[in-house]
Amino acid sequence: MHAVPPGVVRDAVARALAEDLGPLGDLTAALVPDQVMVVAEIRSRGEGVLAGSACATEAFGQVSPAVSVQWNVDDGMRMAKGDVVATVTGPLAPVLTAERTALNFLCHLSGVATLTRRFVDAVEAVNPRTRVWDTRKTLPGLRALEKAAVRAGGGVNHRGSLSDFVLIKDNHLAGLTITQAVHRARERWPGRTVEVECDRLEQVIEALAAGATLIMCDNMTPEEVKECVAVVNGRVPIEVSGGVTLETAPRYAAAGADLISTSAITQSAPAFDLGLDLHVTS
Amino acid sequence: MHAVPPGVVRDAVARALAEDLGPLGDLTAALVPDQVMVVAEIRSRGEGVLAGSACATEAFGQVSPAVSVQWNVDDGMRMAKGDVVATVTGPLAPVLTAERTALNFLCHLSGVATLTRRFVDAVEAVNPRTRVWDTRKTLPGLRALEKAAVRAGGGVNHRGSLSDFVLIKDNHLAGLTITQAVHRARERWPGRTVEVECDRLEQVIEALAAGATLIMCDNMTPEEVKECVAVVNGRVPIEVSGGVTLETAPRYAAAGADLISTSAITQSAPAFDLGLDLHVTS
Amino acid sequence: MHAVPPGVVRDAVARALAEDLGPLGDLTAALVPDQVMVVAEIRSRGEGVLAGSACATEAFGQVSPAVSVQWNVDDGMRMAKGDVVATVTGPLAPVLTAERTALNFLCHLSGVATLTRRFVDAVEAVNPRTRVWDTRKTLPGLRALEKAAVRAGGGVNHRGSLSDFVLIKDNHLAGLTITQAVHRARERWPGRTVEVECDRLEQVIEALAAGATLIMCDNMTPEEVKECVAVVNGRVPIEVSGGVTLETAPRYAAAGADLISTSAITQSAPAFDLGLDLHVTS
Amino acid sequence: MHAVPPGVVRDAVARALAEDLGPLGDLTAALVPDQVMVVAEIRSRGEGVLAGSACATEAFGQVSPAVSVQWNVDDGMRMAKGDVVATVTGPLAPVLTAERTALNFLCHLSGVATLTRRFVDAVEAVNPRTRVWDTRKTLPGLRALEKAAVRAGGGVNHRGSLSDFVLIKDNHLAGLTITQAVHRARERWPGRTVEVECDRLEQVIEALAAGATLIMCDNMTPEEVKECVAVVNGRVPIEVSGGVTLETAPRYAAAGADLISTSAITQSAPAFDLGLDLHVTS
Amino acid sequence: MHAVPPGVVRDAVARALAEDLGPLGDLTAALVPDQVMVVAEIRSRGEGVLAGSACATEAFGQVSPAVSVQWNVDDGMRMAKGDVVATVTGPLAPVLTAERTALNFLCHLSGVATLTRRFVDAVEAVNPRTRVWDTRKTLPGLRALEKAAVRAGGGVNHRGSLSDFVLIKDNHLAGLTITQAVHRARERWPGRTVEVECDRLEQVIEALAAGATLIMCDNMTPEEVKECVAVVNGRVPIEVSGGVTLETAPRYAAAGADLISTSAITQSAPAFDLGLDLHVTS
Amino acid sequence: MHAVPPGVVRDAVARALAEDLGPLGDLTAALVPDQVMVVAEIRSRGEGVLAGSACATEAFGQVSPAVSVQWNVDDGMRMAKGDVVATVTGPLAPVLTAERTALNFLCHLSGVATLTRRFVDAVEAVNPRTRVWDTRKTLPGLRALEKAAVRAGGGVNHRGSLSDFVLIKDNHLAGLTITQAVHRARERWPGRTVEVECDRLEQVIEALAAGATLIMCDNMTPEEVKECVAVVNGRVPIEVSGGVTLETAPRYAAAGADLISTSAITQSAPAFDLGLDLHVTS
Repeated sequence: MHAVPPGVVRDAVARALAEDLGPLGDLTAALVPDQVMVVAEIRSRGEGVLAGSACATEAFGQVSPAVSVQWNVDDGMRMAKGDVVATVTGPLAPVLTAERTALNFLCHLSGVATLTRRFVDAVEAVNPRTRVWDTRKTLPGLRALEKAAVRAGGGVNHRGSLSDFVLIKDNHLAGLTITQAVHRARERWPGRTVEVECDRLEQVIEALAAGATLIMCDNMTPEEVKECVAVVNGRVPIEVSGGVTLETAPRYAAAGADLISTSAITQSAPAFDLGLDLHVTS
Repeated sequence: MHAVPPGVVRDAVARALAEDLGPLGDLTAALVPDQVMVVAEIRSRGEGVLAGSACATEAFGQVSPAVSVQWNVDDGMRMAKGDVVATVTGPLAPVLTAERTALNFLCHLSGVATLTRRFVDAVEAVNPRTRVWDTRKTLPGLRALEKAAVRAGGGVNHRGSLSDFVLIKDNHLAGLTITQAVHRARERWPGRTVEVECDRLEQVIEALAAGATLIMCDNMTPEEVKECVAVVNGRVPIEVSGGVTLETAPRYAAAGADLISTSAITQSAPAFDLGLDLHVTS
Repeated sequence: MHAVPPGVVRDAVARALAEDLGPLGDLTAALVPDQVMVVAEIRSRGEGVLAGSACATEAFGQVSPAVSVQWNVDDGMRMAKGDVVATVTGPLAPVLTAERTALNFLCHLSGVATLTRRFVDAVEAVNPRTRVWDTRKTLPGLRALEKAAVRAGGGVNHRGSLSDFVLIKDNHLAGLTITQAVHRARERWPGRTVEVECDRLEQVIEALAAGATLIMCDNMTPEEVKECVAVVNGRVPIEVSGGVTLETAPRYAAAGADLISTSAITQSAPAFDLGLDLHVTS
Repeated sequence: MHAVPPGVVRDAVARALAEDLGPLGDLTAALVPDQVMVVAEIRSRGEGVLAGSACATEAFGQVSPAVSVQWNVDDGMRMAKGDVVATVTGPLAPVLTAERTALNFLCHLSGVATLTRRFVDAVEAVNPRTRVWDTRKTLPGLRALEKAAVRAGGGVNHRGSLSDFVLIKDNHLAGLTITQAVHRARERWPGRTVEVECDRLEQVIEALAAGATLIMCDNMTPEEVKECVAVVNGRVPIEVSGGVTLETAPRYAAAGADLISTSAITQSAPAFDLGLDLHVTS
Repeated sequence: MHAVPPGVVRDAVARALAEDLGPLGDLTAALVPDQVMVVAEIRSRGEGVLAGSACATEAFGQVSPAVSVQWNVDDGMRMAKGDVVATVTGPLAPVLTAERTALNFLCHLSGVATLTRRFVDAVEAVNPRTRVWDTRKTLPGLRALEKAAVRAGGGVNHRGSLSDFVLIKDNHLAGLTITQAVHRARERWPGRTVEVECDRLEQVIEALAAGATLIMCDNMTPEEVKECVAVVNGRVPIEVSGGVTLETAPRYAAAGADLISTSAITQSAPAFDLGLDLHVTS
Repeated sequence: MHAVPPGVVRDAVARALAEDLGPLGDLTAALVPDQVMVVAEIRSRGEGVLAGSACATEAFGQVSPAVSVQWNVDDGMRMAKGDVVATVTGPLAPVLTAERTALNFLCHLSGVATLTRRFVDAVEAVNPRTRVWDTRKTLPGLRALEKAAVRAGGGVNHRGSLSDFVLIKDNHLAGLTITQAVHRARERWPGRTVEVECDRLEQVIEALAAGATLIMCDNMTPEEVKECVAVVNGRVPIEVSGGVTLETAPRYAAAGADLISTSAITQSAPAFDLGLDLHVTS
């Protein structure tokens, strides 16, 4: 469920290692005696949700097949401060060389999962039927990994790319009415979701009549959303979008939104702090 | 000065567009009439510093050579809320298709530059000789772009990769003294910076005696740093590292640190809000 | 509408040229005097529909910027036998070097468009509301180009990839009922199309009750499809799938299918014959 | 003999999986319970020749190392309708995810091998010394795989790329005689095959006199070919080319052609039908 | 004639620039004032033959479109010491950044062309019909560029890759006679060159009888080669191979060899010295 | 110590194999019976130092997992003529197919290591404190591998890329004094090495006073270098550069240079001769 497509992890890690190792490799790890073996613990330094473990395993593995990683926590599980999330075993030099790349994936993706989980908890406390949705506002090159981290945090995924389904925003309505745009969408891309961004109730009504299968209430107040919910009356799902925060999300959930989307969870999630503690074993 | 190496922008944008467009392209933009021409303004929605303009230009250009971008603000310059940062001209469909990719780069990298600038302003107010340094804690695949954004924000760059210079941390000292490690570093990688992470004054003294050319004071209080500064007495630069915040940074600057490093500016910078406002011209 | 995502054409052509030119380049074109200039006509050798013109233009352009291509026919337009589809102008050697790569794209993709058009014509003659749908049975590495060729031929696109929407086939029902699978799909991937492959009417009824938004009638007779159409009664679209041929497609259209899918148009479309006729001009 | 160069299979499969899985992976397989194990049979649905087995194995393996594939039939062997070609064992979800990519390779490449074999059988029945040759009219990006499939079908490979050897066509003769072109070819590319496309007997005679080492009889009747064969008298091999079909090929073989080339086997081979039948084992 | 396939230059230069610029770009060029414009001359520092000019042009162009390069000498032409080979015009910083990459291509490839030319001159002085042949002993990743440099130096190209034609060496004869191997080669790869490596005259006789179309005399003395030449008597070309030097090459030419191959010209060619002299113009 | 960054070996070998195998693979190895097993010895044909063993192992492994390689000599160790450096075991065909690619890496990189070792031996005999430094004059695409080979030969690495540290050459001094350039370098790139190329003693004095941390004496005589050494007096290391040869290097060492750099070891190192001797075992 939380898995990313095969190939994504391998390629993202290879690219990250290439950028971190440079042409000469790790100058400092080259100073360390070859024979030193270590056990290292990846430890959580806060309360959060794990994501990115496959990337961390891949980073150690690409640097050296002699390094192995054992996970105590799976993607999507909660971590308390001080928890040993994983144990890394192998020669000192490659463990040090891969450490930063492994943690860069782990800290960013766990940051995404952790913030997602906070939104999910806030929303579900009020309305268990409301889901937290991500957006296409992701960091360039990290789309698939961040979307998987959102799932690990209990969120669900909006469009993976522009070719998934149709979302008509006001900028698309240059010379087209909502009705025309929806009709055209259903004709050209039959069988797919057709969502319409609406600023006000009349647009919701028009979109629905035209055959939209998903309604976005954009920058509305909880009260306005409530009104739309009443009008739509379960015929299609309703997404609430536009500057939603941890504070306002529960109010939209209470208003009956099916989906609340937020770019903060991918675009502005602070790194979740994880560190590597190391013990020499020989 | 703020430029990234040629090839980095082209490849990062191509990868981001591929992940956002998917196999079928932009289903929604395909609904828009071909002949509609627009002028669109990229507008700042807060106070900050611009970075990533080359990526945004490249994104529009790769989607269609018929789209052109004119910048009013250069990377590294300050933006006020409402400022028109750039003007985008061309057919509606490709402008909409490239919009999200262009903004994803722009919002993230301007977020990095903006947070860097806040650290720089805080530090320089106290000690104009103190510089804000980044780290290798960057988002995977975005190293070169984020490091350029740090420069745009007035910061300077620590190691670009592990092959730039030597940085001996305590994990490297398995079975080696600081003195041995520094000697080995100078022998194997002559002519390069050799930095040593120190927890306490005695380590600073040992590192200096061994020939270190840069000292990192790790997780020290401003008072401890001050003591180190006095002992080092300008012979080599001193970096302060470890959980530095916007609040504590000025105190380290006052203590005489040459360089204050922080991972927050790359790893935890919230997206800076920029949007595209669109006007149909034909 | 027929366009492929930016980057796809460039990369596919670069790959095709690399495989056709080998390490030494075109041994035979190297024998030709440098100064010979030509005008060449790409000519249709049958009745069909054009697709792939952007690839052909790109192939000539990547081999030499001195070669230019002028199109008389756009993707999606019909060609008669003998029609001059495009005119290629430039030095003889690069025109000959790029010829085969350009034609390989053009002949295959026009073959896809042409066969699609034959299905579309056959179906629309009977039921103008019925659309021809492609499948994921495409040639490896050519998905985006073939899906664009299907659009050029008047067809529409089923899923671009497995991450577009949900399609529950009988192999997915190991230990799940249709009802359970549809509920799970709507919970995990809200807002997206959920299609169910049905072998018989009872499955259609169950899928519809569970909330499927698209029904596939798999390997049914036109009579069985007609019965399903009556039961579904326009609530969701109905796809007919499974061994549909040019002969049987109209019968399914007459039965009221919204969408008729066929793998033949991508997987088994014979190359459409186009050739290059060359005139030396200097 | 039928093998493709190392790297080709790995890269072609990685590209195909990336295009089929998209950013979110297989939405539908994600619904399936993790613990379900299956045995699946790849079964032939017609009479034909297998090709592409390495690609299918690679597809399942790249999706999950927990899936294994056992082949009962090797590339190049004949399959009857209903034959179990291979057995796939592993967890249900990755088997379903890889299924389409594996079959897309297998069906296309077995289609190429099967059509090649039909040509080979038709030709060898008449003249066991005549061989079926492929062309450079292959699908873009699939050259190496299709050429291997031709070998699996009993055919042989003409040029792999333009840098293999010289083939002088009439378009190359702008301002050069055949004699001049052949001399130049032998001077610039010594030791290599120099083939000349001939429309009529006089050209064959000129080419032979100039030192061509291979003669192509282009668009000649079987009678004309017979005449050329008599004149060449075994000094160099003779290729027959131009619109050869399964019906006309035997007549050219009877005329004494050494090689009969056809683009149909790569460019217009219909997919050979193979399917995956699945049994849950736990 | 000296051109490399399109795509090779672009990709090789992009790779070389990426490895030379690193994540931060050219630290030193970043110190230079933006407005300084220069004219720089690429000057030969010895007697030799130019190759690689397209790579140098591409290197400057990829670093900045504001830099232009004008060539006075083409690939394949002789340079005297002090000759101005090309003029580079543009802003100082990108000229300096691209300088080393441009020269690295130019010096290596001109080194290959220059050493090739020395072999060609030595051989042609004795026997104008003898050609200098390269080998597959090239530097990894530079095959196509080095083979083009050999052509620029007046040499000709042996196999570009293992898939060009057949070359049976003694290691291939495990359990096969020369006769068997040649027959098998002609059967499996009809129409192609079949070369046999021979240590002694009897092998030459056997290979010829079996139908080899090219004979390699390996590690023979000039006298032994002469004997082979007499026996072969012009029926197929003869290659001399094995430790040939500038001193011994003319003796093999005098013995009547058609082709003399040497790995020294690609594998051991010293860099040809070219430098960049720079004049500030504003 | 001699290791290259993970990923570099895998990618360089994949690229080299792709260029050597072409679209059809190894035509000649395809003639060899499948069941023949061999043991092959990689044997030194001269006195030298090994480098590149990881590439050779990778080449055999990528061609076939059935081939294994056992090394008797490690990178950096000396080889005498006739030494068996490694033993290769496996089926004959893939051993032959990988042979040339494996040896191309091994011969070039051992050539680099061997020439480096000759410089190191010459220099250390006179002054054990003097080190041999490489340059950025490396073959395009082989930077990381050649730099590792230099380390294997006992040399040390100058800059890996332009982003490692600052090196101010006279071309950078357009409108800047040395003092200004050094100050700017220390301000923009704090903590990093700042090297200045000096033609004469006054420049050394100015650079030192400005804060340079490394001095390059360019094209000076040993006597001039000696004078500089006396003036610098151990405050920073001194590099000697410019046309240094095996003959002149010891004189610079005697003059007290810390580092002697030479481009010959990477750009002009002749291939070191290694061959594969093969024994059939079944």
